[in-house]
Amino acid sequence: MSRISYLQDLLSSLFERRDAQPAMPDARDLLALGKSMLTDDGEVSRLQTAGALLEKFSLASPDQKLSFFKSLASEFDIDTDELASRTATYAAERNAQTLDRLLAVAEPRRQELLRRLNAVPGGTEKLVRMREDLLAILRQDDSLARIDVDFEHLFSSWFNRGFLVLRPIDWTTPAHILEKIIKYEAVHAIDSWDDLRRRLQPPDRRCFAFFHPAMPDEPLIFVEVALMKGIPGSIQTLLAEDRTPARPEQADTAVFYSISNCQKGLRGVSFGNFLIKQVAQDLAQGLPNIKTFVTLSPVPGFMPWLKQAAASDGNELIERLHLEASVMTPENAHEASEETIAGLKALAARYFIQEQRPKGGPLDPVARFHLGNGASLRAIHWLGDRSENGIRQSAGMMVNYLYDLKTVDANHEAFSHDGKVIASRDVHALLDPRLDAPAARRQSNG
Amino acid sequence: MSRISYLQDLLSSLFERRDAQPAMPDARDLLALGKSMLTDDGEVSRLQTAGALLEKFSLASPDQKLSFFKSLASEFDIDTDELASRTATYAAERNAQTLDRLLAVAEPRRQELLRRLNAVPGGTEKLVRMREDLLAILRQDDSLARIDVDFEHLFSSWFNRGFLVLRPIDWTTPAHILEKIIKYEAVHAIDSWDDLRRRLQPPDRRCFAFFHPAMPDEPLIFVEVALMKGIPGSIQTLLAEDRTPARPEQADTAVFYSISNCQKGLRGVSFGNFLIKQVAQDLAQGLPNIKTFVTLSPVPGFMPWLKQAAASDGNELIERLHLEASVMTPENAHEASEETIAGLKALAARYFIQEQRPKGGPLDPVARFHLGNGASLRAIHWLGDRSENGIRQSAGMMVNYLYDLKTVDANHEAFSHDGKVIASRDVHALLDPRLDAPAARRQSNG
Amino acid sequence: MSRISYLQDLLSSLFERRDAQPAMPDARDLLALGKSMLTDDGEVSRLQTAGALLEKFSLASPDQKLSFFKSLASEFDIDTDELASRTATYAAERNAQTLDRLLAVAEPRRQELLRRLNAVPGGTEKLVRMREDLLAILRQDDSLARIDVDFEHLFSSWFNRGFLVLRPIDWTTPAHILEKIIKYEAVHAIDSWDDLRRRLQPPDRRCFAFFHPAMPDEPLIFVEVALMKGIPGSIQTLLAEDRTPARPEQADTAVFYSISNCQKGLRGVSFGNFLIKQVAQDLAQGLPNIKTFVTLSPVPGFMPWLKQAAASDGNELIERLHLEASVMTPENAHEASEETIAGLKALAARYFIQEQRPKGGPLDPVARFHLGNGASLRAIHWLGDRSENGIRQSAGMMVNYLYDLKTVDANHEAFSHDGKVIASRDVHALLDPRLDAPAARRQSNG
Amino acid sequence: MSRISYLQDLLSSLFERRDAQPAMPDARDLLALGKSMLTDDGEVSRLQTAGALLEKFSLASPDQKLSFFKSLASEFDIDTDELASRTATYAAERNAQTLDRLLAVAEPRRQELLRRLNAVPGGTEKLVRMREDLLAILRQDDSLARIDVDFEHLFSSWFNRGFLVLRPIDWTTPAHILEKIIKYEAVHAIDSWDDLRRRLQPPDRRCFAFFHPAMPDEPLIFVEVALMKGIPGSIQTLLAEDRTPARPEQADTAVFYSISNCQKGLRGVSFGNFLIKQVAQDLAQGLPNIKTFVTLSPVPGFMPWLKQAAASDGNELIERLHLEASVMTPENAHEASEETIAGLKALAARYFIQEQRPKGGPLDPVARFHLGNGASLRAIHWLGDRSENGIRQSAGMMVNYLYDLKTVDANHEAFSHDGKVIASRDVHALLDPRLDAPAARRQSNG
Repeated sequence: MSRISYLQDLLSSLFERRDAQPAMPDARDLLALGKSMLTDDGEVSRLQTAGALLEKFSLASPDQKLSFFKSLASEFDIDTDELASRTATYAAERNAQTLDRLLAVAEPRRQELLRRLNAVPGGTEKLVRMREDLLAILRQDDSLARIDVDFEHLFSSWFNRGFLVLRPIDWTTPAHILEKIIKYEAVHAIDSWDDLRRRLQPPDRRCFAFFHPAMPDEPLIFVEVALMKGIPGSIQTLLAEDRTPARPEQADTAVFYSISNCQKGLRGVSFGNFLIKQVAQDLAQGLPNIKTFVTLSPVPGFMPWLKQAAASDGNELIERLHLEASVMTPENAHEASEETIAGLKALAARYFIQEQRPKGGPLDPVARFHLGNGASLRAIHWLGDRSENGIRQSAGMMVNYLYDLKTVDANHEAFSHDGKVIASRDVHALLDPRLDAPAARRQSNG
Repeated sequence: MSRISYLQDLLSSLFERRDAQPAMPDARDLLALGKSMLTDDGEVSRLQTAGALLEKFSLASPDQKLSFFKSLASEFDIDTDELASRTATYAAERNAQTLDRLLAVAEPRRQELLRRLNAVPGGTEKLVRMREDLLAILRQDDSLARIDVDFEHLFSSWFNRGFLVLRPIDWTTPAHILEKIIKYEAVHAIDSWDDLRRRLQPPDRRCFAFFHPAMPDEPLIFVEVALMKGIPGSIQTLLAEDRTPARPEQADTAVFYSISNCQKGLRGVSFGNFLIKQVAQDLAQGLPNIKTFVTLSPVPGFMPWLKQAAASDGNELIERLHLEASVMTPENAHEASEETIAGLKALAARYFIQEQRPKGGPLDPVARFHLGNGASLRAIHWLGDRSENGIRQSAGMMVNYLYDLKTVDANHEAFSHDGKVIASRDVHALLDPRLDAPAARRQSNG
Repeated sequence: MSRISYLQDLLSSLFERRDAQPAMPDARDLLALGKSMLTDDGEVSRLQTAGALLEKFSLASPDQKLSFFKSLASEFDIDTDELASRTATYAAERNAQTLDRLLAVAEPRRQELLRRLNAVPGGTEKLVRMREDLLAILRQDDSLARIDVDFEHLFSSWFNRGFLVLRPIDWTTPAHILEKIIKYEAVHAIDSWDDLRRRLQPPDRRCFAFFHPAMPDEPLIFVEVALMKGIPGSIQTLLAEDRTPARPEQADTAVFYSISNCQKGLRGVSFGNFLIKQVAQDLAQGLPNIKTFVTLSPVPGFMPWLKQAAASDGNELIERLHLEASVMTPENAHEASEETIAGLKALAARYFIQEQRPKGGPLDPVARFHLGNGASLRAIHWLGDRSENGIRQSAGMMVNYLYDLKTVDANHEAFSHDGKVIASRDVHALLDPRLDAPAARRQSNG
Repeated sequence: MSRISYLQDLLSSLFERRDAQPAMPDARDLLALGKSMLTDDGEVSRLQTAGALLEKFSLASPDQKLSFFKSLASEFDIDTDELASRTATYAAERNAQTLDRLLAVAEPRRQELLRRLNAVPGGTEKLVRMREDLLAILRQDDSLARIDVDFEHLFSSWFNRGFLVLRPIDWTTPAHILEKIIKYEAVHAIDSWDDLRRRLQPPDRRCFAFFHPAMPDEPLIFVEVALMKGIPGSIQTLLAEDRTPARPEQADTAVFYSISNCQKGLRGVSFGNFLIKQVAQDLAQGLPNIKTFVTLSPVPGFMPWLKQAAASDGNELIERLHLEASVMTPENAHEASEETIAGLKALAARYFIQEQRPKGGPLDPVARFHLGNGASLRAIHWLGDRSENGIRQSAGMMVNYLYDLKTVDANHEAFSHDGKVIASRDVHALLDPRLDAPAARRQSNG
């Protein structure tokens, strides 16, 4: 369609312009520039000031950045007296003028500052980097945490689902994007360009990423997919170089085996939910034989939890199983007895089904993500991940979360309501009463 | 650059997807759908609800729309008690949690509703149309005016300068865009496709429009430009079909002779300022011989003002000039005496320089726009517009506003400060003491 | 796919460059320039000469053009002595060197001249225009006809099927392409842009054109398609403005109702064959419910033939029917008696099935085109075209040619072999022995 | 420009279609398929046959390929009797018909076969691969050499300058193109993707390639460019990782330091000439400060020649210098005495200026390429290439060829005329009478 090409064309000027506009040098410090952003009402001069502020911030020392964040907290906050007064006025008389005056003071002034910085071409990415700096500071000192409330508030609006663009990533994708895929892969590291090619080029592999038009060179999140016959239980088998690739039109299952968030500065703005569902829909449309959408996922919290359960449950069997899991290595893992395997799988089933965080929901962060999206726990695999890391974090176990497009919304609803894990019969059948949680805890979770 | 093409490509899926996603039929009424939007926390089901609401609204009767707007005003407003209470809490203890809780109630809940509607692909345009409907209602009944405060607030953020895309419009532009240029031209009507071609195809003509990535088929504002030698004084000469087009590389002046806002639903969100400056910059870069950027503009408020001045000033000369202007027609206008012409130009100069609105600034709306952008009043032309409309509204006079890129910011600053019209010596020289404003008014304006 | 976008990008430089390269002024005349093209072995200077020659030719007077064509015939022909000699040498000893020397003289030297002119960006289109001029001359004087052999030979190679690009034409196509669609429509004239929109925008309409990468602004041939339920018998019904458009996914028939060659200069290079088959394939893929592909075609040779048959057959019934057809008008056509209608349809059936050109094949040029493509004659419609032109050329009759993708190749083979018209039983059933061709002629055709 | 985007769009269908069209299996052997290509006049079935032939050839064994080539030579050759006869006819009567009949037999029938194979989408690339196979066979047995005359003849026409597309290659180029750059780099090998990035990403580096629209995934030739201040004398310095990149707008010299032909199957079709000139023009336009365009080139034939000169000239000094050069290594090269250096440079100057091939032109193949393009020999650098290969082939010397856009055409003309090397005064000044060629040879070369 030439309509599409018109749209494409339309965008180019935006990005071309971006390159052309160097920020002017400006002698003022960050705080002065920020203040001027809010008082200057010349839109053109304000754009220049914004460019200068963002440039200066990117070159600032850690101390200068901290100092700037401190002024954001103190000098660009809400005037609560004014807000209280205007709230009262609006309560008394609700009209356009009173609302206008109320809204003008109903948010920290730094929000308007950030909004105005975002008007600079390229500003969005620089603000994401700014928040990365802020989050690094907050890890040590959360006195500035309320600034982050404003960042997250604005980013949620700007990175609205309606603006995100889903793109296939393949071996014809520009190299500067591909090198970011290598860099950002967080689950199963990509060692080299050859390794990357093995993830992208074979006919049974797919990869998709979300982008935002204002940050077109930066993927926000991406997912790697394997097309297979049947549901896989082992990541090493799935990634094996010497496998015979399934022909896409014969595959019946799409496996999301790696999902990576790319931008630390977008913490709290969730994309994964939409990404998986959109990719599942697109795949289903293009390859109608694909009927099953599952993940092959790690269980990063299993061994830490097991260690603790072994210490506190007072259950000798658990203690023994924990000990056996602790001494497992990639080399000896295949020697585990059937009994040990059954025991560890039972404990994994308990970890998912019976254990909950104080504020509800499963202990495992990956489980919280997928179950929160409306997926269900489909299967637990012994030695799904034989790598050193896999053995260490989950005694080598991996799991499948099933995305059934017909039930994801209902599942999601149920999960949000009571945090209960929806698991298959197979998973429930793994439970072993001898390894269950102590009665008291089970009850409180029920 | 292939980076650009990657970007272009990136966008296509966004817009392709849009076509593919029909809204599901949903039996609930608009209000029920709206409420569900705020309570449902399933992101996917919420998208479907949003699609249904927007679809239903577009098909609703005027009464149903009015009723929906009324509920937006009453049921999705601010809870002022809660806001007052949380403001107090935040004043007492400023941290992330108290801020988060405060912000959650510090805006009418309809803002969040609109934000969530905007997450639907294609939602932005539908919300712009919704506001058109609202503005039509407000013209008769402004009791709902405070809803519009929220629309304008959100639109100002979404139609941020950083997201706008400047596009040349020419004879190779897709027809479905060009037909909108014909439709939206507001200053000098385009009669036909042949007329359109005459505005776009000759080498001495340019046209540029702003677009937003979320509404790629809808121009937001566009400007038509003529490249000329010298500053023109007559729109008929400028548009003459039988003119010899200037060769662009020999022209020294770019004339912005028509600027049209396209989207009624974006009232109050200003683009013209950036458009003119961006176009001036781009032209200056591509055609370094172009040194002068001016408008050729109508004076729509002159005759209404003159009628009133003739009635109230008690100045016989003014009364006579008004009478002569009143009987002017396209046919007899050229017969005006030198004295009449000088008198009317003097009155026009007074209209711009000495007269002010009660809240400051020139009476003429076109003058307010350009002077507010930082332009200055450069010249007043007798019979600049010989059309019937031109004679009726301004006795045929037109003016040039000059955009001097070096002084626009300072001019803008000065104008915002005291509303004073910056006019050239030539314009000042037209003033005639016998036709000046009565002393009292002049003083109060000074 | 970003591979596609890379390809797209790839092309842009080609065409951008074209605009940038003005031909240098050169004082030599066309013949001198042409000779220099063949002797100069500086590739860069040769490109400049070529640009100058093409520019000069496009501005030349008819006499200058004629004179240039004459020198092409005389001075750039084959040296037959040399060719005979090298042929003998090659016959005696077939190796690379003797072949090379033979090929160097085995074509008129103007072919190499044209090939070198084609190396100029934009040269292809200019050569097509040059041949248009040549064809106009040949119409009056075919002494230069052998130059055209070389043009056709080269064009057939350059406009190879492998290079043609099929593009949908719709309401989002750039205006400068659309205005050429208006200009080139040869069957059912397009009156205005509104008329064009009615052909392109409704959901039951499609249009496709072939382009060549070296002439991207010029369609080569295009076809207009209507999606319908059932096979239509009337062009007026098909084009009716007030029809209810079929929903594409419910249509079962694609009707090719207008095919127009655009470039006179490409006479003899056939595209229509591929165009229809490619469009049929593409439509079948995107709309699997479309099972039938037919034309709705005029019968331009019917009335001229009937006049002659009436004069020479000595058949009173035919004479009477011819008379009745001769006085038909758009206004009275519907008053024709059943008998007249049956008679004229029988004559039309005979015209298609029993009559043949001396060198074989049906008399009707449109029939030759479609049957040569492998289509079959499906139906004859009374008053398929009620326009004045339709009445005049075919007593208002139109026909359907059926493209059955399974049999086109076999049909084509059969038709090329013996020129026999493949017609449906329905058409055969229309024949009336009283109106048949005289026995002698029928036999010779059998 | 949206015209450009329309063009881009236009191309996409071409390449999309290519992927979609699998060749049908066909039981006939290559020869039978080839014969059928020439006799079948069904265009659609012929396309299928062509697809089958190309597919079958690509999978054929070496023997099958050889056998196919042999039939191309014997069974698809010129019928010389027929050609002689038709030549005589044409000589007697020159008209369109006699010419048509002559041309039909005036080339080997395999040319028409290849032309028809080229009509298949993707056919061009497969024919280039076919010729690669042919050239490999010819290296051992040139009895089939006359087939290659036809390949070269057709490829020269299809890879016409007017169809080539110049593209920048940079770090945003798709990976599948970049991996071919790594593969095809023939002068200074690229070790890895990191090495590639160092050639493409720094601001002082450029790379450009020619593509053909029918082979969009395959570069034809590319050149790597360094932007520098001044003319460099050492490739190691130019490529040094730790250099400070010149800012492009401050550079005054563009250095073509590596030119690689990519397609063995296009031997004899020259692109380098146009590539360098086009790149020089484009760079000059974008970076007006770049005034000098030079190469930094190897001298691959120097040491082989020196060995021979040492053996045959009977000049002791040359013998000594040859011995010294022979024992040089990357490690000891810097220890060479001033005298040795001067001697070897003098010999290099003699190698370029005084020595000629029997059929004229310099001995050095790189010199023949650049001088044939119209460049001149600018300078000879001691230790320009310290690599083992550089020492071995040229005692570490490199040279600059200067492309002065004002004189390239005249230089080219002069060089084609008498094969004389145009060298700078500096190079001439290096000559040393004691090391000159023996008088006899010098004279014959003069």
